[in-house]
Amino acid sequence: MEHEKFAEHGHRLIDWITEYMSEGYSGPVLPKTEPGAVMAQLPETPPLEAEPADAVFADFKNIVLPNVTHWNDPRFFAYFPANHSGPGILGDLLSSGLGVNAMSWATSPAATELEIRMIDWLGQMLGLPWRGCIQDTASSATLCAVLAARERLADINQAGFYTQKPMTAYTSEHAHSVLQKAVWIAGMGERFLRLIPADRHFAMQPEALREAVARDVAAGFRPAIVMSTVGTTSSTAVDPVAEIATIAGEYDMWHHVDAALAGSAAILPEMRWLMDGVPEADSFCFNPHKWMFTNFDCSALFVRQPEALKKALSITPEFLKTAQDSAVENFRDWGVQLGRRFRALKLWYVIRCYGVSGLQAKIREHLRMATWFADQVEREAGLTLVTRPRLNTVCFMADSDERSRALMMAVNASGEAYLSHTVLDDRYVVRVAFGQTHSTFAHVEKLWQLLRRLHREMVTPAE
Amino acid sequence: MEHEKFAEHGHRLIDWITEYMSEGYSGPVLPKTEPGAVMAQLPETPPLEAEPADAVFADFKNIVLPNVTHWNDPRFFAYFPANHSGPGILGDLLSSGLGVNAMSWATSPAATELEIRMIDWLGQMLGLPWRGCIQDTASSATLCAVLAARERLADINQAGFYTQKPMTAYTSEHAHSVLQKAVWIAGMGERFLRLIPADRHFAMQPEALREAVARDVAAGFRPAIVMSTVGTTSSTAVDPVAEIATIAGEYDMWHHVDAALAGSAAILPEMRWLMDGVPEADSFCFNPHKWMFTNFDCSALFVRQPEALKKALSITPEFLKTAQDSAVENFRDWGVQLGRRFRALKLWYVIRCYGVSGLQAKIREHLRMATWFADQVEREAGLTLVTRPRLNTVCFMADSDERSRALMMAVNASGEAYLSHTVLDDRYVVRVAFGQTHSTFAHVEKLWQLLRRLHREMVTPAE
Repeated sequence: MEHEKFAEHGHRLIDWITEYMSEGYSGPVLPKTEPGAVMAQLPETPPLEAEPADAVFADFKNIVLPNVTHWNDPRFFAYFPANHSGPGILGDLLSSGLGVNAMSWATSPAATELEIRMIDWLGQMLGLPWRGCIQDTASSATLCAVLAARERLADINQAGFYTQKPMTAYTSEHAHSVLQKAVWIAGMGERFLRLIPADRHFAMQPEALREAVARDVAAGFRPAIVMSTVGTTSSTAVDPVAEIATIAGEYDMWHHVDAALAGSAAILPEMRWLMDGVPEADSFCFNPHKWMFTNFDCSALFVRQPEALKKALSITPEFLKTAQDSAVENFRDWGVQLGRRFRALKLWYVIRCYGVSGLQAKIREHLRMATWFADQVEREAGLTLVTRPRLNTVCFMADSDERSRALMMAVNASGEAYLSHTVLDDRYVVRVAFGQTHSTFAHVEKLWQLLRRLHREMVTPAE
Repeated sequence: MEHEKFAEHGHRLIDWITEYMSEGYSGPVLPKTEPGAVMAQLPETPPLEAEPADAVFADFKNIVLPNVTHWNDPRFFAYFPANHSGPGILGDLLSSGLGVNAMSWATSPAATELEIRMIDWLGQMLGLPWRGCIQDTASSATLCAVLAARERLADINQAGFYTQKPMTAYTSEHAHSVLQKAVWIAGMGERFLRLIPADRHFAMQPEALREAVARDVAAGFRPAIVMSTVGTTSSTAVDPVAEIATIAGEYDMWHHVDAALAGSAAILPEMRWLMDGVPEADSFCFNPHKWMFTNFDCSALFVRQPEALKKALSITPEFLKTAQDSAVENFRDWGVQLGRRFRALKLWYVIRCYGVSGLQAKIREHLRMATWFADQVEREAGLTLVTRPRLNTVCFMADSDERSRALMMAVNASGEAYLSHTVLDDRYVVRVAFGQTHSTFAHVEKLWQLLRRLHREMVTPAE
């Protein structure tokens, strides 16, 4: 591709993204794609000769765009958001332009040092003066924490598990499946992962944790790690981190805190309580790509004692040695992957272009949306709020599981909004998560009107 | 950030990237940064109020740019390349603009189906009609292969390792450290990883593998996986994959082939021999982000029997269930991470904008650079070629390890080129890897002139 062609096409894409962000997508937020429908429109064989970028872009608009789920549409209220933003896109673009591999300090000093500074800034914003690094996702961050905990008890990296007493892990029954998966991958076995019962607010019961740990110790097992969640995926429940930290201390367990979504809210003074007890834990992660307007992927992992993490993950063959190794951090020693993108750039753009007060204002607005929406649900006959939202997510039910499911399906089928679901106390529950970069109160009001209309039509079918 | 501001700044960055790609960076390819020098220029606290994007960009140019290692500079010959390209940047930009999370088919049907088609295209280009998915890095792809191999022998995910007979793994003594790290993470223990001796071309000796496996079986261990390398990192040696496949078959081991770099070359008819024996293996990975002009990160993982991979990695909590689960692929079941970027877009742009013949032409040119450079080294008194390059990397030595190291350091200190090193047969060896998107023969000739001059000055110091 000639350089002028790159520039010409690049400008076209910038204009298109600007339009996409400012005007939104005109079609459905959740596409009505049938499985295989996209494949059927894509040539079965790769092109032998070069095609113009315009041809690819035309196919992008005709084939891809109508068949993507629009995660950055203001009408997206499903799951948790995966937010982009203007500054995030710009930072990511520069990162693509440089294309550095930030595996070692020497392979890009500025990438490593900007990453250190960004973690430092985020730590100040959260009141957590720890070191850390940027991971791709909370899946990877959690796996790192589990591996650090595992290696703290025994040198599994070298010896394997074979002669070990079982290591046990603990988390709430409402914790995310990525925590289970990390235990799987580390070879510790789900059989030794205790899903601790939650209270009626879906938060872990610390006494149940203490009993489970005591039982395991009595059985001759070795408690390795407890994982707290601040803001569970199903209902944004907040585990009692401080109490869990005490128990972790009593039994000398690693304590990881997963605040993948909720960490962003902790930059608000009025939400700082989310961090209670975290400084007594061992590791903490949250995802600026969820609710801090930083393009996916960007998960910030903080550790109280980085040496424990590096002990688990550091390996240096000859061809990766550099002259500065003893004087610097090589972030490849802080994670699973050797190769690492320059993710700090997009975070730098986001924090500076929004400013901390700008980020706070947006997140505060999202919290207000959740409160407002919960109020409407509470007032509507036939709908039941599962819990009052303390964060960005409203969980509610209709009169029956069937009706809850049907209501969600009807909203999603309209193409005018996208919601997702969970199961709480054996009931099918609809989730509405606020936090999309481009959502305004007008979008939230529209969602409510749509939902109310569809619900009322269900309850009182038109003749 | 207002939308007009985004557009304005976006255009500025496109122009800057165009200039960076077409004119190259005027400063040193390897910066002379002292540890801490970047940190010292970055404010210690995050800004409270929003700053204009132009201020961030100015700092990018003044603070970041002089202190990054320019991986996409035509003078970069270190490690293996991490290639960007115009089409790769454009595809990545669209992916940032959409910001979808391709974890499940339903969370973005087009992302999943385009990914299936891209793997299909790559498979045709390589003669490997397997299914697969895009991973971030070969680190993750290798870990997935190890976990699939592990779960094939026992349900470690559920039971842990505790009651198991040790599982053994095999790879060449020249294999990449990410293979070792995958064995660590999976809890199998480096003690049970056999580094099989290589022949004088640094390729695994299959008879030594057979003996090691037989010894382990006799000792009551369970051979789980053998990992072949096509194009080792130190010297691009090629293990005898077909013979290794036979041994893997005899002992019912999983056989993973790591062709992270060399896979790209296998799209050339004259280099297709690199794939000999691969169709008899179980999994194969190569990185389009290394040598196929697709922005980092993009690693293609192929598996002969995807069910084995999914058995190891699939977990579906209620909140991730979708209506289409039984009819589609959810790629979160094919990897470690739940969240996944829309990486297929950049690969689509690259394959279509270059065309297969365009990709072949570029890779062929890089191979020709390596041959030419090796010829020059061979003719130069005092320099010794370690092996004739069959791929893109030239390994050579000066008269002594000290002189080899000094020569590399002198080249790197000039700022006019960046080389890296390894150790082979206990000798310090300089590596020169060709494959950078923007390198031309003129750059290679300049590199040779520089290297020859510095070497001659060392051998015969000026009075």
